[in-house]
Amino acid sequence: MSRIEARPDEDAVAAGSLPGRLTENLPEHPTENLTERLLAGLPAEAVLTDPDVTSSYAHDMASFCEAGSPAAVVLPRTVEQVQHVMRVATELRVPVVPQGARTGLSGAANASDGCIVLSLVKMDRILEISAVDRIAVVEPGVVNAALSRAVNEHGLYYPPDPSSWEMCTIGGNIGTASGGLCCVKYGVTAEYVLGLDVVLADGRLLSTGRRTAKGVAGYDLTRLFVGSEGSLGIVVGATLALKPQPPQQLVLAAEFPSGAAACDAVCRIMEGGHVPSLLELMDRTTVKAVNDMAHMGLPESTEALLLAAFDTPDPAADLAAVGALCEAAGATQVVPAEDAAESELLLQARRLSLTGLEAVKGTTMIDDVCVPRSRLAEMLEGVDRIAGKYRLTIGVVAHAGDGNTHPTVCFDAGDPDESRRARESFDEIMALGLELGGTITGEHGVGVLKKEWLAREIGPVGIEVQRALKATFDPLGILNPGKLF
Amino acid sequence: MSRIEARPDEDAVAAGSLPGRLTENLPEHPTENLTERLLAGLPAEAVLTDPDVTSSYAHDMASFCEAGSPAAVVLPRTVEQVQHVMRVATELRVPVVPQGARTGLSGAANASDGCIVLSLVKMDRILEISAVDRIAVVEPGVVNAALSRAVNEHGLYYPPDPSSWEMCTIGGNIGTASGGLCCVKYGVTAEYVLGLDVVLADGRLLSTGRRTAKGVAGYDLTRLFVGSEGSLGIVVGATLALKPQPPQQLVLAAEFPSGAAACDAVCRIMEGGHVPSLLELMDRTTVKAVNDMAHMGLPESTEALLLAAFDTPDPAADLAAVGALCEAAGATQVVPAEDAAESELLLQARRLSLTGLEAVKGTTMIDDVCVPRSRLAEMLEGVDRIAGKYRLTIGVVAHAGDGNTHPTVCFDAGDPDESRRARESFDEIMALGLELGGTITGEHGVGVLKKEWLAREIGPVGIEVQRALKATFDPLGILNPGKLF
Repeated sequence: MSRIEARPDEDAVAAGSLPGRLTENLPEHPTENLTERLLAGLPAEAVLTDPDVTSSYAHDMASFCEAGSPAAVVLPRTVEQVQHVMRVATELRVPVVPQGARTGLSGAANASDGCIVLSLVKMDRILEISAVDRIAVVEPGVVNAALSRAVNEHGLYYPPDPSSWEMCTIGGNIGTASGGLCCVKYGVTAEYVLGLDVVLADGRLLSTGRRTAKGVAGYDLTRLFVGSEGSLGIVVGATLALKPQPPQQLVLAAEFPSGAAACDAVCRIMEGGHVPSLLELMDRTTVKAVNDMAHMGLPESTEALLLAAFDTPDPAADLAAVGALCEAAGATQVVPAEDAAESELLLQARRLSLTGLEAVKGTTMIDDVCVPRSRLAEMLEGVDRIAGKYRLTIGVVAHAGDGNTHPTVCFDAGDPDESRRARESFDEIMALGLELGGTITGEHGVGVLKKEWLAREIGPVGIEVQRALKATFDPLGILNPGKLF
Repeated sequence: MSRIEARPDEDAVAAGSLPGRLTENLPEHPTENLTERLLAGLPAEAVLTDPDVTSSYAHDMASFCEAGSPAAVVLPRTVEQVQHVMRVATELRVPVVPQGARTGLSGAANASDGCIVLSLVKMDRILEISAVDRIAVVEPGVVNAALSRAVNEHGLYYPPDPSSWEMCTIGGNIGTASGGLCCVKYGVTAEYVLGLDVVLADGRLLSTGRRTAKGVAGYDLTRLFVGSEGSLGIVVGATLALKPQPPQQLVLAAEFPSGAAACDAVCRIMEGGHVPSLLELMDRTTVKAVNDMAHMGLPESTEALLLAAFDTPDPAADLAAVGALCEAAGATQVVPAEDAAESELLLQARRLSLTGLEAVKGTTMIDDVCVPRSRLAEMLEGVDRIAGKYRLTIGVVAHAGDGNTHPTVCFDAGDPDESRRARESFDEIMALGLELGGTITGEHGVGVLKKEWLAREIGPVGIEVQRALKATFDPLGILNPGKLF
């Protein structure tokens, strides 16, 4: 009989090793004892229990995700303090929700009732940067932008660049396997994590991976933790791979008479063997939203705006080649930036997309469906159809080179009917993504928002294996319960 | 109580979920029944039981690794046939050893007594190649070189290039997480595996990962299987990421008066932000061995020969910059190849290194220690010291840009004392690698050869976690038992 199976086996149930059984074992009023136990290994200022304060740690930036009230928020500064927290949590059977800067978009960092919120933001030291070994060793609370700037000073480059990079932490990036604009050339966070220090559910410290360029000693535990949303252990340190700093990128903007034509250009660019450092798409709705908000003077007559960039030794030559492919695909206007300043303006427009769309109706739900890039045009057409069906404004911004779309549903959260339609359209977009051979999440994660969809994507055997892994690492179900599954 | 712990817990023992208990349950003469059961789902020509034939499937290319006698060798052609084999193996509690082309260097594919050897070489179809999506979908028995050539015809590039690329299979590459010469720029096999089809121990089929450029839905099961040496499941299909075909690379050779000077050049090149497509080192012993065998006319006066290559748009410019760094580090001679033919000759010399070293004494043990490249000079000095201590010839070839050394111990297998010294020096080289912050295996894997060393590298908590994962996927311990741990 396998441990990986459709139904919980009796041995596992007897051993209390299944997640989701936790609340039955919880004492009724655990908070006082909990605080006392936490304070035995943490300084007073690192343990917050005032509900007015702790409530501000209840949730991340996702819409439509339930969030409970934490019993305590802890702000450890050392690995030993995190180990203490996990030992207390195991002893008292209290759920632990790890948090970075709470900029996530799937509710993965949302508190559950009576939990310990374990915020890693005070563990924010960069411990080492080596230009020869091209690595950085960091604590989890380091802000992405702080790391990026620090490594730049050594001529190095840490590519992962989520939109929230000025706020989000490396620990949060690792927990959610974050992407960004750079991925089409440089890949996602996962590809930059060489090794981790992880505090396990019972407080033991595990070191995974390596600080060498290569290494295959044993199972790849490092990658198992990346994207696990704090449900397998608490990341307390990371060794990250760095790249040499590339030349300044140069950006081109191309206007298209249809989304399909823009997607055709994307396919021609990738099929042609080009390696852009960025290949982004903004649809008409998004372009208009950005103009309305920031008066950028973007061309509102366009149905789709494509931005392509190269950070190669001769970016102008690459932009010329890609510009020709855009014209062949039907672009009505192709404008390469002349210099870094013009490039930055175009990127600024792209970065304002979500804020612009938020202003349309006050609230947005940002989907994150990634499809094979050969199916991107069908994805855009489908989203358009879904927007019509539900009478909603849905703007699409996409990391087009990756096939990673962010259809963004704009709605008035005060209107229950519109909110219901928003949620339904959001789900229908995921169904469409799966139909096109894609995934429900390219870079934002599952969290609370998409947990019912994970099973649809990975199927029953996939779910059984994932649950078995969860139970192996977290037999008491105290690590970020209620997320992913 | 955690599932991940130092001692087997009683529940797990009761449920028979620990590896290593298997032989106790084996019937005494299982072979006849086994053959009959296998033939119920496989054609006769796919089941081999003649010991003269099956014995040729007993081991891979590693020295000093025990290998048992298989009860049967099966050569399935379909996923369903593999599922049948695993169901029979589970039913009869027979160990299964998956095999590709048996070119591995750690004994990971070695048979155990009474096992089913599950050879995947007949599942050798390339199912799909897409230039737009930059992916290939393949069966596990596809030979690496066959895939490389097939994707080249689409203007694409599958980088992983182990030395055995003309023989080794993609399934084997995935099982051992193979590297190659390309890794310094393009990374190892793991970075090219997007999704897998895996038959689990009990015969169920699991699909992992995706065919999109990005995807973070659930735990990264794909990477867990890569490098797991067939101990968690049988890979029966893979979706691989491809790159556009780069320009033809141009190679430079530089001679150094010492290993330390060559390593200094490596550090200067990497610190300078260069991205060579290859950065290899051959020490004096290796250069001489290649000359003795193939009369290549390499400079025998050199203490270390460094080969650097670039596949950039202007490789000559990159080689000039790197050549200057080599001279600054003390190179006595720097010779950039004029064209592809000259480049190919230099690479040919590098590729003959291991064959050349084999000719020195008839037998070699190839170590695979990877250290941070900042410690490479210390590694070379240490190997030299160890060679002196054990009175042995140890040639070093290294993927120097990765810090991945292959100290190759040359010995006469007919001389027991020399064989003993060879094994001892081999182990001492691993100890040195760990001391320098490295790993016991950069790309060859653990297998049988290094399983006692895995624990030394990853520590007791690491081993507990790895064993718990093994037990989760393979509670009966039938998947390639005796490997890794």
